[in-house]
Amino acid sequence: MTPPDAAHRFDIATRLTSLGDGLYTGSTHPDYGNMVGPFGGIIGAALLNAIMQHPQRLGDPLSLTVHFAAPIADGAFTIAAKAIRTNRSTQHWYVALEQDGQVAAFATAVTAVRRDTWHTLDAVFPNVPAAATIAPMPAIARAAWTACYEMRFIAGIPGAPDTASDSSESLLWMRDQPARPLDFLSLAALCDAFFPRIFVRRPAWVAIGTVALTTYFHADAAQLAAQGSAPVLGRARALNFRQGFFDQTAEVWSDTGALLATTHQVVYFKE
Amino acid sequence: MTPPDAAHRFDIATRLTSLGDGLYTGSTHPDYGNMVGPFGGIIGAALLNAIMQHPQRLGDPLSLTVHFAAPIADGAFTIAAKAIRTNRSTQHWYVALEQDGQVAAFATAVTAVRRDTWHTLDAVFPNVPAAATIAPMPAIARAAWTACYEMRFIAGIPGAPDTASDSSESLLWMRDQPARPLDFLSLAALCDAFFPRIFVRRPAWVAIGTVALTTYFHADAAQLAAQGSAPVLGRARALNFRQGFFDQTAEVWSDTGALLATTHQVVYFKE
Repeated sequence: MTPPDAAHRFDIATRLTSLGDGLYTGSTHPDYGNMVGPFGGIIGAALLNAIMQHPQRLGDPLSLTVHFAAPIADGAFTIAAKAIRTNRSTQHWYVALEQDGQVAAFATAVTAVRRDTWHTLDAVFPNVPAAATIAPMPAIARAAWTACYEMRFIAGIPGAPDTASDSSESLLWMRDQPARPLDFLSLAALCDAFFPRIFVRRPAWVAIGTVALTTYFHADAAQLAAQGSAPVLGRARALNFRQGFFDQTAEVWSDTGALLATTHQVVYFKE
Repeated sequence: MTPPDAAHRFDIATRLTSLGDGLYTGSTHPDYGNMVGPFGGIIGAALLNAIMQHPQRLGDPLSLTVHFAAPIADGAFTIAAKAIRTNRSTQHWYVALEQDGQVAAFATAVTAVRRDTWHTLDAVFPNVPAAATIAPMPAIARAAWTACYEMRFIAGIPGAPDTASDSSESLLWMRDQPARPLDFLSLAALCDAFFPRIFVRRPAWVAIGTVALTTYFHADAAQLAAQGSAPVLGRARALNFRQGFFDQTAEVWSDTGALLATTHQVVYFKE
């Protein structure tokens, strides 16, 4: 666990320094490194943080689309956030991360003021064993960021069988490691922490990279606070692998059966 | 059917005039009107068309995220398209539609050069009766755009029962009306032609509006050409309705069982 007087590494990795006018500086963190460059989820969280810290922000995150436009180098970056249009209860954003004067990643987002309405849940919370009954997966040495998450797989461990699986679905309990209370930033990062579905469906290693990712936030701040640092349940699957790209869809649930976020991405694979 | 010498109304509605440097002018079309302003799908297609016509475009559409940032007035608009980053086989775009000097809608997109790779389909083509065996739904007078689509519902007709359904899922054959060969633009518009899931789950009428929509194109140009003007199969559902917003997810299949596109949106509802 994190000593009470030290910042969590997630907060250090997503920390931005404001230069005013929606411009920020930040830096990659070695703990969230991936095989090449940083883990995409931490970049998405940093982009969202530029909105969260923006003095003109209206409401909480509703949607976030992140484009991983080019490789990101380890080290410093700038982020510029701009409210494109502000309505009474929604606000549309464009945010760009630059290194060496070139955009390496960018995002669009909607923030919104939520209010109570009619509600119903169409998705079904999976019938799963409690997190504490399942051993966490060991981190993967060549992908440092995997040590930043506790992942307890119920089904669909990536690369587990030597033969191809007939389903790309995974079901797992997951949370930050060390444990950290859930917020919009960590939820955004968690939505990109599902292993590429191709490693579940076809365990052979191939080069992959997320091209673009969209997350819808169903949770409000009160639901996130209620979740605290307890594990969330993730369910991910792909629909189609073809011509160098596949899609990936996931649900993130609270341990009490509230749907916190749904997320979709399109991923490049080499061959 | 369209006379052979006349342009299809979809092509008129998405037609842009280039002013050079990625800047275009266009105009809404009354046939694609909605209750307030134009049908979102036709605006998304016009935004994508600015990329399709851009002289710097690399490859075909892979993903498209459209933000409906503000109400769009009937009449003229400008669209500005910009390649944010161009890689060897992918290109990331930002496109904005303005009226009266303000952004009313914007999109991000990825275009990509596709090549043959390992492939497999994880999603399952639904077991459905042939399109010709099902009567098309009559158009809805207060939403002109519905007359621009032939929709043959197998399940989940919006507002059909007087009582709430226990599922938001719809399954239907759909195509342009009059029939028109499928291409990336019309596929993008079709992905927004699923009725709001709240009208399936809770048939009471409430004001709604799509906030943001993401489409992943799985089809290449050859698959679209093979589809021609035959109906495609659509399947849509929502996962969660809460605090003024719901999500909506859909698959679009060729009549021969190829997954052409998957799409996701977040929708505002009033109460």
